[in-house]
Amino acid sequence: MSLLVVGSVALDTIETPFGIAEDALGGSGTFCSAAASLFCPVHLVGVVGSDYPVSELDFLAERGVDLSGVEQVEGESFRWSGVYSYDLNSRETRETRLGVFADFKPKIPEACRNLEWVFLGNIDPVLQLDVLRQMRTPRLVACDTMNYWINGHRENLLKLLEHVDLLMVNDSEARELSGDHHLLRAARWIQQRGPRIVIVKKGEHGAILFAEDMVFFVPGFPLEDIFDPTGAGDAFAGGFMGYLARAGSLEPDELRRAMVYGSALGSFAVERFGLDRLRNLTPAEIHDRVRAFRDITAFEHIAAVPVDV
Amino acid sequence: MSLLVVGSVALDTIETPFGIAEDALGGSGTFCSAAASLFCPVHLVGVVGSDYPVSELDFLAERGVDLSGVEQVEGESFRWSGVYSYDLNSRETRETRLGVFADFKPKIPEACRNLEWVFLGNIDPVLQLDVLRQMRTPRLVACDTMNYWINGHRENLLKLLEHVDLLMVNDSEARELSGDHHLLRAARWIQQRGPRIVIVKKGEHGAILFAEDMVFFVPGFPLEDIFDPTGAGDAFAGGFMGYLARAGSLEPDELRRAMVYGSALGSFAVERFGLDRLRNLTPAEIHDRVRAFRDITAFEHIAAVPVDV
Repeated sequence: MSLLVVGSVALDTIETPFGIAEDALGGSGTFCSAAASLFCPVHLVGVVGSDYPVSELDFLAERGVDLSGVEQVEGESFRWSGVYSYDLNSRETRETRLGVFADFKPKIPEACRNLEWVFLGNIDPVLQLDVLRQMRTPRLVACDTMNYWINGHRENLLKLLEHVDLLMVNDSEARELSGDHHLLRAARWIQQRGPRIVIVKKGEHGAILFAEDMVFFVPGFPLEDIFDPTGAGDAFAGGFMGYLARAGSLEPDELRRAMVYGSALGSFAVERFGLDRLRNLTPAEIHDRVRAFRDITAFEHIAAVPVDV
Repeated sequence: MSLLVVGSVALDTIETPFGIAEDALGGSGTFCSAAASLFCPVHLVGVVGSDYPVSELDFLAERGVDLSGVEQVEGESFRWSGVYSYDLNSRETRETRLGVFADFKPKIPEACRNLEWVFLGNIDPVLQLDVLRQMRTPRLVACDTMNYWINGHRENLLKLLEHVDLLMVNDSEARELSGDHHLLRAARWIQQRGPRIVIVKKGEHGAILFAEDMVFFVPGFPLEDIFDPTGAGDAFAGGFMGYLARAGSLEPDELRRAMVYGSALGSFAVERFGLDRLRNLTPAEIHDRVRAFRDITAFEHIAAVPVDV
């Protein structure tokens, strides 16, 4: 089964303690597609300006990303520039130039309107809802958002959430949206607004999935070196959604594995600048990483373990 | 097998958004013993003042804590008073009165000098080392410490670490001790100074064990309500050490389970004020919690999962 990804296709200029990358491929749609396409066919809908090095997206097309929904229009591409702190735990945005992204109105190609697996990257909730109006029979609609929409466009976001199955946010966003510092209660609050599944991403501290009768936790992978955190959340989303679309199931066991595949892809993304690590990832590497996640979390519960009271 | 616990036996006055507890039983030795005694016999070594309500420790004696090493001397007991923020994520110390604890020189009773499992609560590293000199054949020596010793008594602490098998610290302490923000590297740094096992406690974000060839992660348990975080780390230490002493093994599978039992005890500790939750804990409750930890972390890795590249 195939996945529809709607999101930004950008050019990032990133400075980390390890170096600088200028005008590197970036954007939520790009990272998510790069990760998801390791599992299933992907249809990407986005917009780029006349200055975009479109041929650099060829590697995505080669592994099954349909780019016909990426419109190229007159004007400047979306550019983001940021600098990370020495420990990579915080970053400062130097510049955001929306360019043609400011007028982005996602048009879902006719051939994509029957897709069942939908990921709405972080854009105006009005546009996210408009995408959903174009879809006929989505089976799982997942979306991302950010503090900008939570604070300034709250009503629109809450209206969107009524039509969303899965919300994927980071911990500060979950807290801001719900007004509750406590993540479990924050997730329950969000679930009452529509999404029956909430995933809270906590960066180096891992990610938690809250479903109706299930909580599932994946730690951040203990990497020796982190190179560039940009796009880790979108790579997580791509791995998660790509795995689920491929499995074609929302069974609890599949949701658990999707969390691990998402975390694996997120952990790979940070090992190199920008998209670089996702370009040449092999199935063996992905399986090894998933196995490593199992090694650091699995234990056998011995019901007969002695406890004196 | 039995566990030796050396630590503070204190009276805590705690204010949380849910209420105030005055002169409640507290201290690292008390919390650790309360948790560990659910698994194995415990010998507690500490000191209290003439004002200590010693009879309130009877519940510990009833479940196998040998209190003969808790000396009562003329003077005031160790008192700590603190207030937690509305979200319980930070706390401010209002008052620390060391009292008789200021002159604490742990004397290990002759009958305890052959014990194999040793936990050194957070006290002056010179005293911790002095305890070790009194022990004959310890099999596992674990210790806790804090920023005060890391910053002000660094040389003494490093000398102690050469004789310690397992260091248990929180994330900020691991970073401060090693000078490395990155936890994996911080743990490797510490391992090179002596302890072959390092456990980093991250509060709501769980705990990580670093051994020679193993990393193991347990999340913070997603509790609906947290009442009082005081003593969670010491209850973790007690559950961890108590489980290991009972198992009588340092095999990787036992270390994994010890991490989960430790986390379970830590998660119980915060459900009520002070020691209250640990008083009446039943084996069934402990097993249910461990099973719940398994539910939120276990997944099956299907080696044949399709990955296209």
